[in-house]
Amino acid sequence: MAPTPTAAPRINAPRINRGRLWDTLMQAARFGGTADGGVNRVALSAEDGACRDQFRAWCESAGLALRVDPIGNIFARRPGTDPARHPVLMGSHLDSQPTGGKFDGALGVIAGLEVMRCLAENNIAAAAPIELVNWTDEEGCRFGGALIGSASWAGSLGLEAALALTDRAGISVGAALDAIFYRGTATDGARPDAYFELHIEQGPILEQAGSRIGVVTGAQAQIWFDVVAHGRAAHAGTTPPSARHDALVGAARIVDLVDRMMRARGEDGRGTVGQLDVHPNSRNTVPDTVRFSVEFRHPSDAEIERLGVQFPREAGFIARDADIKLEMRELLRIAAQPFDPACIALVREAAARNNLASRDIISGAGHDAIPVARSGIPTAMIFTPCRDGISHHPSESITPEEAAEGTQVLLEAVLARAS
Amino acid sequence: MAPTPTAAPRINAPRINRGRLWDTLMQAARFGGTADGGVNRVALSAEDGACRDQFRAWCESAGLALRVDPIGNIFARRPGTDPARHPVLMGSHLDSQPTGGKFDGALGVIAGLEVMRCLAENNIAAAAPIELVNWTDEEGCRFGGALIGSASWAGSLGLEAALALTDRAGISVGAALDAIFYRGTATDGARPDAYFELHIEQGPILEQAGSRIGVVTGAQAQIWFDVVAHGRAAHAGTTPPSARHDALVGAARIVDLVDRMMRARGEDGRGTVGQLDVHPNSRNTVPDTVRFSVEFRHPSDAEIERLGVQFPREAGFIARDADIKLEMRELLRIAAQPFDPACIALVREAAARNNLASRDIISGAGHDAIPVARSGIPTAMIFTPCRDGISHHPSESITPEEAAEGTQVLLEAVLARAS
Repeated sequence: MAPTPTAAPRINAPRINRGRLWDTLMQAARFGGTADGGVNRVALSAEDGACRDQFRAWCESAGLALRVDPIGNIFARRPGTDPARHPVLMGSHLDSQPTGGKFDGALGVIAGLEVMRCLAENNIAAAAPIELVNWTDEEGCRFGGALIGSASWAGSLGLEAALALTDRAGISVGAALDAIFYRGTATDGARPDAYFELHIEQGPILEQAGSRIGVVTGAQAQIWFDVVAHGRAAHAGTTPPSARHDALVGAARIVDLVDRMMRARGEDGRGTVGQLDVHPNSRNTVPDTVRFSVEFRHPSDAEIERLGVQFPREAGFIARDADIKLEMRELLRIAAQPFDPACIALVREAAARNNLASRDIISGAGHDAIPVARSGIPTAMIFTPCRDGISHHPSESITPEEAAEGTQVLLEAVLARAS
Repeated sequence: MAPTPTAAPRINAPRINRGRLWDTLMQAARFGGTADGGVNRVALSAEDGACRDQFRAWCESAGLALRVDPIGNIFARRPGTDPARHPVLMGSHLDSQPTGGKFDGALGVIAGLEVMRCLAENNIAAAAPIELVNWTDEEGCRFGGALIGSASWAGSLGLEAALALTDRAGISVGAALDAIFYRGTATDGARPDAYFELHIEQGPILEQAGSRIGVVTGAQAQIWFDVVAHGRAAHAGTTPPSARHDALVGAARIVDLVDRMMRARGEDGRGTVGQLDVHPNSRNTVPDTVRFSVEFRHPSDAEIERLGVQFPREAGFIARDADIKLEMRELLRIAAQPFDPACIALVREAAARNNLASRDIISGAGHDAIPVARSGIPTAMIFTPCRDGISHHPSESITPEEAAEGTQVLLEAVLARAS
């Protein structure tokens, strides 16, 4: 899938400092670091605030000009030589899941910092300004909405609505920003010319394929449902088969249906029931109510359209056969988001130039790059493998080589775009 | 299924007082009565204590001699005319589920009281003594073990072990008995000649068949399992079908298997997954662990033996196909308990004598009659229909006619045995 190295254009790119990169990643992981090697740095927590302060200090030491926007996104700028050029933006997020790892998000931010340090120490001045961003609250595990900073910045989420979101303690995003002094005022950034984001894959595909770099060509389309199966509670010992309306039997067959519909679409298909709650959940009672989530993802909008028709129909047949009633709500439908061919090519070429086995990959997870791309800014992402595909877990792991390779590709793609 | 009325032996039986029976049932339902028409009278609670006090007062007014045994079972005795005869025992339980109804248990006790009142006011002296019992804690929803009073009395549960069982607050059965003054000392009861228990069916069979009386021929055999499906947590968006080890997909197919194995055994089969818990139970994560209960019931011990072999084997095949691991523990295996043919015949004859459509039925639920029968005492049960087969719910309901018919059959069966 990777072009041969000789096909890659030559570029005068410096080498990033692998040891410095890794040390900085490990230093960042101390903010909210947990005893099991994980990170608990939920968005706008005290730990997130302290990590942001450290990040800002590092940026200042690298000679970057800082600004913070009203939703707390931090931008760090290295000027270009051509005043007419719009900046090339790179970045990711420093917030983590409560039981997160060291690399989800932090890799893309700290890699961007290493790119900046490397450009500074090599006195490389690109034509376009280069900017690094730390987006606010990518994970969405505190205020209920994910990608708050990037979506608000990109215009798909209103700023007032974003600031008004509250956590379980009733604290709003606005109040949480104030508490850590990250409600900024900067609204003066020029629209970026392009956006690049390095991220761990959070899946097993690159590792299994032996690829070092994932050239992310876009994000999947998605459709989410909330389903409630209504049966009738009954005594497990006294109720004969013919008198049963077992909500769990119906729901279980729908779980199997979701899996079959996924597999019918091959390796590009995703279909998951992640959440399922049984009522009354008592050993000797036939369940009367089962609530569960259903989600499908696929690179093709047309396939998601088909699933949006097929799934409710087939689930309805199952419910009829199981003598139960279904209540189904389509929660969300997201179109596929292709990334920009020119930006994708820069990533692919940088991997080839470094003799790194690469393959095209679709992003299965949500990322800040998606609202950015949806707003029309040419975007690409770079994935590095992560061990066993594990993320959102303290055992999330990448090697120093993987971090360095991804960062080198980021540097070269950004520099090529900025030249 | 019922013999023709002319086949039933003649008996000089008085008629029970339907209005008094119903009034007394409604009075008993006030103890722990809830606003929705249900009853919350958990074993050895203050409500249970107050209901017991009222029951004792009613028994004393009916001229019965009371004794309380060390596990709190209350016996009320009407003497017989033949000193050599052992007593004929009848009864049930006054404790309820926390969200119970007015009739589960209480019907059998209050019907026994009505039998006693009826015998007293008609000056009927049987050859054998007749005793009425209120068993302690049939429901098992407070101290973890069901049928505590009857099983302890019948010898299948040690008295010390029974008294030492504790509730979630750490209160033991012994302490709870002391708190309501029902830890008795009576150990002087003669072994009963027979035991009869009237109970609501707690299932839909009689109602659907148009039967007024269920002639209970025995209790089902049972086998219970605890099952844990172990898969691997993974990101729902990034993990392709080939890399999934979805514990819920495997568990769902086993839920379907339990249902199919039940239906393969016709209307006598019971197979239920009542409890199922998903971990981490997050919409975007492939579940790594699913814990669930499995139980099968059938009138035939041989069928339960077969299920005990077949189910783990078939579930194992499903787990292998789903790329997950199963952990399975057989929790409980209970042999079928046939009731006594002579006692059963007395119930059948009493129904026929009263022109009540009856049918033989197997008890699907647990009842105090089962440990009593298992201890070798000739036993039978009488079921009355209950509306829509519902029990353990405030809407549990029977009609005054159904209560009266069951009580008349109880009186005649007991009197025939005692004569």
